[in-house]
Amino acid sequence: MKKRRPYEPIEWRDGVVRYLDQTLLPHEVSYAEAGSFSEVVEAIQRLALRGAPLIGIAGAYATVLASREHEHDPSSFRAAVTHIAEARPTAVNLRHAVDRLQARIAREGDISGEERTRVLLDEATRLHRETAEADRQIADHGRKLFTSPATILTICNTGPLATGGYGTALGVLAAAWDDGHIANVYVCETRPLLQGARLTMWELAEAGVPATLLNDSAAGALFLKGSVDCVIAGADRIASNGDTANKVGTYPLACLADRHGVPFYIAAPTTTIDPFTSEGGDIPVEVRDGDEVTSWGGTRTAPPGVRTFTPAFDVTPAPLITAIVTEEGVFRRPYEFGGGGGTR
Amino acid sequence: MKKRRPYEPIEWRDGVVRYLDQTLLPHEVSYAEAGSFSEVVEAIQRLALRGAPLIGIAGAYATVLASREHEHDPSSFRAAVTHIAEARPTAVNLRHAVDRLQARIAREGDISGEERTRVLLDEATRLHRETAEADRQIADHGRKLFTSPATILTICNTGPLATGGYGTALGVLAAAWDDGHIANVYVCETRPLLQGARLTMWELAEAGVPATLLNDSAAGALFLKGSVDCVIAGADRIASNGDTANKVGTYPLACLADRHGVPFYIAAPTTTIDPFTSEGGDIPVEVRDGDEVTSWGGTRTAPPGVRTFTPAFDVTPAPLITAIVTEEGVFRRPYEFGGGGGTR
Repeated sequence: MKKRRPYEPIEWRDGVVRYLDQTLLPHEVSYAEAGSFSEVVEAIQRLALRGAPLIGIAGAYATVLASREHEHDPSSFRAAVTHIAEARPTAVNLRHAVDRLQARIAREGDISGEERTRVLLDEATRLHRETAEADRQIADHGRKLFTSPATILTICNTGPLATGGYGTALGVLAAAWDDGHIANVYVCETRPLLQGARLTMWELAEAGVPATLLNDSAAGALFLKGSVDCVIAGADRIASNGDTANKVGTYPLACLADRHGVPFYIAAPTTTIDPFTSEGGDIPVEVRDGDEVTSWGGTRTAPPGVRTFTPAFDVTPAPLITAIVTEEGVFRRPYEFGGGGGTR
Repeated sequence: MKKRRPYEPIEWRDGVVRYLDQTLLPHEVSYAEAGSFSEVVEAIQRLALRGAPLIGIAGAYATVLASREHEHDPSSFRAAVTHIAEARPTAVNLRHAVDRLQARIAREGDISGEERTRVLLDEATRLHRETAEADRQIADHGRKLFTSPATILTICNTGPLATGGYGTALGVLAAAWDDGHIANVYVCETRPLLQGARLTMWELAEAGVPATLLNDSAAGALFLKGSVDCVIAGADRIASNGDTANKVGTYPLACLADRHGVPFYIAAPTTTIDPFTSEGGDIPVEVRDGDEVTSWGGTRTAPPGVRTFTPAFDVTPAPLITAIVTEEGVFRRPYEFGGGGGTR
């Protein structure tokens, strides 16, 4: 992924949020514009904008839009900010972004609504840039985990589409590919919304990285073949003990990796670490609409009226995680984040 | 499932094989007729007829049709029988059925082509009836594993649609339900062809058994919730050491069950046990068409030209299997089949 990628997942342009509608990929590379905070929230909720770091950025820009919409109505602005922070419950990056922008306002003291919007845009742009810089550092730390051509298994999408930058887990793989240390990347399709099939396979193809698509359920057969050298995934929230919430299906991969003696890595910026959540059991897990399992592409596949179990995430216990790669370095068990504990 | 079920997966009727086209379920309960052996083979290959015991029955009837088509051409008949036995590679029931019919001919000695067809129809009908009887016995042995209302996880389809009888794993659950020992059945959708979503959810609804559908990848989240009391699945081939090939995705469930200290059961007739396969590594695993992971319902979901990994089955090692329920009783490790080793 050395060359500049031919797509931009999110940008602030001419006073609106311009974003790539990820629900239409890989068939259509189609951009949409959100001129109001509620349009951004809606885009986050329907997963047109997704990926924990990217929805942090989107939440920041949404806060700018909310400020502009309610420049003379502090109470409506506060309500809008709460609405943004709660757009999706699991990825803590969204809350972090909104908190950061609010802290910036607090530092500015008594300013007008117009000044507030200007200051918030400055902070959102800064957060966007820092997220991209963190990706680069994650990739530089993570690439050192690979010393010879390896076959990797991953799930969901953790590339530029997920972060607005270089990617987290997929950024590490892209850097390792540049180093000649990737033999192949196996990609779980990632039911129900197929981010692996639709987004990761597309991003890897764009980057020229060799990849193979599989049903999520086929990961076991892949391990049985001895075809997996390591697993690497992103994260939506990391508890302070290292327990990690990520796309549903990640925990079974960690169990398989453990049984087969294969390293299991998480790659995520430190904004994904939640110091206020001590362990995985405290992470709120979003439940998706049952239609995502009973239908496909608008066509019903299950009989009418069936009950569903549709968590969007699962939580991998820290003991199953070999290392967590952040922009501050590579953390290993026991996880003690902050204070420079990561190895560089 | 006490009441007579309102559908018949396969029957010999008026000289043809009448079968329920399972690719159209649950939306259409549509029957088709196969008047030639190659039509039966085609139905098996496109999974209109599926389920290890059921394709054994289908293979037996196909052999009858082949005999009738080639009553005066022994060499073409032999070629047809080989073709039938190789319709799908993993389920050993198909080979067992064809071998059994050939053994019957051998016992009959020198008979005419017409007599051969008549004798084969007698044997195929007998095999069909015995398969259904075995299901009942499997259910009666298996129901004893449940002593209070339990929450069960299963994968793929192992009901009447899979066996032409009462079902294997689903037959056990139906019997346990009649005993008041089922709280709920969680059903993995079973990618790529969604036999769990389409067939098992339909059969459980028909039988009035409470059921909940989940993405295959969500099984880990279900275990993390502590919501699984046991896993029960069918089998396509059981090696003589107990290693069991079943629908891809079964092995990850066995790993999860093991990690969470939950029993993992296989239910299958003894015709699924292959004494000529000593261990799981020797079981041939069918590879399905890549389109099954790159597309759905004729709509492409992955980018064009991607590579795929699409095994139809995986192999669960015997040490992960708590017990194997057959019509001869419940076998436990170390697995020594035959010789009355099952507990009744």
